[in-house]
Amino acid sequence: MTASNRQVLLASRPQGQVSEDNFRIVETPLAPPGDGEVLVRNEWLSLDPYMRGRMNDAKSYVPPVQLGEVMVGQTVGEVVESRDPAFRPGNKVLTSLGWQLYGTAAASALTRIDPSQAPASYYLGLLGMPGMTAWFGLFDLGQPKSGDTVVVSAASGAVGSVVGQLAKSRGCRAVGIAGGQAKCRYVVDELGFDACVDYKAGRLEQDLRDSCPNGVDVNFENVGGALLDTVLRSMNLHSRVVICGLIAEYNATEPYGYKMLRAVLVKRIRMQGMIVFDWKDRYDEALQGLKALYTAGKLKYRESIVEGIDNAPRGLIGLLKGENFGKQLVRLG
Amino acid sequence: MTASNRQVLLASRPQGQVSEDNFRIVETPLAPPGDGEVLVRNEWLSLDPYMRGRMNDAKSYVPPVQLGEVMVGQTVGEVVESRDPAFRPGNKVLTSLGWQLYGTAAASALTRIDPSQAPASYYLGLLGMPGMTAWFGLFDLGQPKSGDTVVVSAASGAVGSVVGQLAKSRGCRAVGIAGGQAKCRYVVDELGFDACVDYKAGRLEQDLRDSCPNGVDVNFENVGGALLDTVLRSMNLHSRVVICGLIAEYNATEPYGYKMLRAVLVKRIRMQGMIVFDWKDRYDEALQGLKALYTAGKLKYRESIVEGIDNAPRGLIGLLKGENFGKQLVRLG
Repeated sequence: MTASNRQVLLASRPQGQVSEDNFRIVETPLAPPGDGEVLVRNEWLSLDPYMRGRMNDAKSYVPPVQLGEVMVGQTVGEVVESRDPAFRPGNKVLTSLGWQLYGTAAASALTRIDPSQAPASYYLGLLGMPGMTAWFGLFDLGQPKSGDTVVVSAASGAVGSVVGQLAKSRGCRAVGIAGGQAKCRYVVDELGFDACVDYKAGRLEQDLRDSCPNGVDVNFENVGGALLDTVLRSMNLHSRVVICGLIAEYNATEPYGYKMLRAVLVKRIRMQGMIVFDWKDRYDEALQGLKALYTAGKLKYRESIVEGIDNAPRGLIGLLKGENFGKQLVRLG
Repeated sequence: MTASNRQVLLASRPQGQVSEDNFRIVETPLAPPGDGEVLVRNEWLSLDPYMRGRMNDAKSYVPPVQLGEVMVGQTVGEVVESRDPAFRPGNKVLTSLGWQLYGTAAASALTRIDPSQAPASYYLGLLGMPGMTAWFGLFDLGQPKSGDTVVVSAASGAVGSVVGQLAKSRGCRAVGIAGGQAKCRYVVDELGFDACVDYKAGRLEQDLRDSCPNGVDVNFENVGGALLDTVLRSMNLHSRVVICGLIAEYNATEPYGYKMLRAVLVKRIRMQGMIVFDWKDRYDEALQGLKALYTAGKLKYRESIVEGIDNAPRGLIGLLKGENFGKQLVRLG
């Protein structure tokens, strides 16, 4: 085993846009695992929009990352050394070890994954938090019925791509919103959505109306800001809005002022915020459902890969700008 | 019977604030009722915030009032002449005849009320649409549990006053928001709320935090605008926001820009718009519940009365400015 680790620390808090200066990369010695602990070599690091929030010194779902601490995040890796009977070297595991090449965790904090059913990296996306976010957000909160129109923003992303395909599996019309023609073509041609609106084309409201001739029954919101305000104009009576992410706001220094809240009253909309942690007792239900659809060839999936831990900051910056195409990962080794 | 009626028509659509110029008062001949119809002499006209929306030429819950039409509204009145076996002269009825002294309606459009159980005018407020709005909005959407903190804006008004008292009946902490010290004293001393914040005092956020030491579990929103944005800052995890009214926006020419929508995500808030019409199949459930509490002396209620139909426009204008104190009515005769 190696005696040295490489980590990405939070060096300073961003004001608005994240820059590479907000991170510091360090080499640190690697301590052996203690009793009940497991040493893992991380192979894949997941990059997710929520990480932007953790960089602020503000109360959110969970405490922020402290300056000088390793950036948080999920990884998939391989057990190198185990001091717990539940794991042995070679096991593939899902971890919360963050932005580093190696890490030691209590055995209870690790989850075994089965790489024979799907590539190991999929447990960070389609079969991980993003996939389960799509599953519970759409089915539990969005409650689409067959024939409903489901709109999802960031439609080519890790969560959005699954939301639309799940909606299709329940007989809904799936309409994506994405940035650029290439992403929109992918959403329709590869993922099988019925339509996709390119918000960069500058005709969002009209294009959305054209793509949703019967209005919108479920809006699965990943972006927020002007996109959400516009979709609210097309919501149907008794429709549902799932607030899963507001990435348009994460880098902004001033919060967006939503002007269409009146639609919530007039259309009797149910709008609900979600974090997948709230379903942690039911993860297995989602995982089984997602695996079944994936195995049946009904869930397409794409990964956007950055090479090497030193490029992780650049990967997150790109993700926050919408430069990724599918689930954003860092290949660590 | 009289041969002449007096009506208030919509003369022009307001730009922003409503003025008396937007109305026209006319004398019209009175036609006898046809088969299956009933002629009613209106005694009480209810004035409600939703009427502002009907004056706009915009799609809302229902079509707008057309120029030259009688202003819409509920009344309580007495049957003068009946061509239907279900009603006879002297019966007290709840109607949708609008702003006029007399009116003819299909018997099926009238509801008998029992003035021995409560004053007839109460069927326009505590035992009418406002009371049922409070009942279903709080219990079905707000879902307060014993010990929860329930905040309600326009707390001295027809809906808000009932919301807080219903919350108390379920063991909640009831905190009102109202304009001015007199209303706040009434809300606490007469209605029995635990606290009331005077938003005109200019310290809303701090006063609200002081009045809600355990945060807010249910916000029953009647006002909107800066009030709602501020309450959102104090909402608890998995709390509920019932959007019943946005009176702060009704007279505005520009919609308010809500900056705290991020709280819906971070706190996983469920925010839901409501109109009591959606519960029309369950009105009796609310009415029985409200009557039981009223009879037991557990629902205090106050009316704010304008005299005579010619003063109805002034009454609505005052209501929209928050000048009323309790349920706003017009005494017609």
